[in-house]
Amino acid sequence: MEERCLPECGVERFLLLLDGPWATLIVRELLVGPQRFTELKSRLGSISAHTLTHRLKRFEKHGIVRRTAYAETPPRVVYELTELGMTLNEVLKAMNAWGISVADEKLAG
Amino acid sequence: MEERCLPECGVERFLLLLDGPWATLIVRELLVGPQRFTELKSRLGSISAHTLTHRLKRFEKHGIVRRTAYAETPPRVVYELTELGMTLNEVLKAMNAWGISVADEKLAG
Repeated sequence: MEERCLPECGVERFLLLLDGPWATLIVRELLVGPQRFTELKSRLGSISAHTLTHRLKRFEKHGIVRRTAYAETPPRVVYELTELGMTLNEVLKAMNAWGISVADEKLAG
Repeated sequence: MEERCLPECGVERFLLLLDGPWATLIVRELLVGPQRFTELKSRLGSISAHTLTHRLKRFEKHGIVRRTAYAETPPRVVYELTELGMTLNEVLKAMNAWGISVADEKLAG
C-alpha cells in the first residue's frame, strides 16, 4: 500500500480540501443545487475562472463534486455535490450559525 | 453610524475572520486552554512567528482572543480564547466530524 501522510485530526483533514474562502463558498453555492460553470462563477462574484476551474477539478478528484457533460449543442456541463459533498452542509450550517451570532462591531475593521 | 460593508451570510462572516488553515488551527490549539506564544508556535509546527503574531493580533482586535501580559521577570504573555472565541468550538466540532467521516482515499493525492 502506498504510504500517505494524512493528518489524523478531523479539522486538519477538513482543511486539506476546504482551505481558503473560495473552497467553502463554492460548496455553499452548490448546496443550492446543480449548476453550470458560468452560473456558479456569476454567483461567486469576483472569483477568477482559473481559480474556479482549479477548485472544481480538485473537488471532483476528491469525490466532493460530480461533473456531468451533456452532449448537446452547445455542450452543457453541470457541476453538483456528491453525497459526500452534501455532508459538508453540517459544517457550513455551523459556520453560518457562528457568523450570524457575531455582532457587526466584532467583525468590522 | 459608520457605514460598513459586512456580508449578511453567516458563512461569509465566519470566513472574514477564519480565512485560511492557520486561523482555524490556532483556534483549535487555544481550545485546549490558555497558552504562551512559544507554546502555541511549537504546537502549530511549521507556522512562522510573523504569521502567528499577525493572526493573534487580528483575533485580539476582533474579540476572539484575549492577550494577558504578566509583569514577571521575564515577562509572561498568555493568549486565550474569549467567550466569543470559545463558541467557535461548534464549528470546529463540525469540521472534525466531517474530516473523520471521510475515507483516506478521498483525501489523498
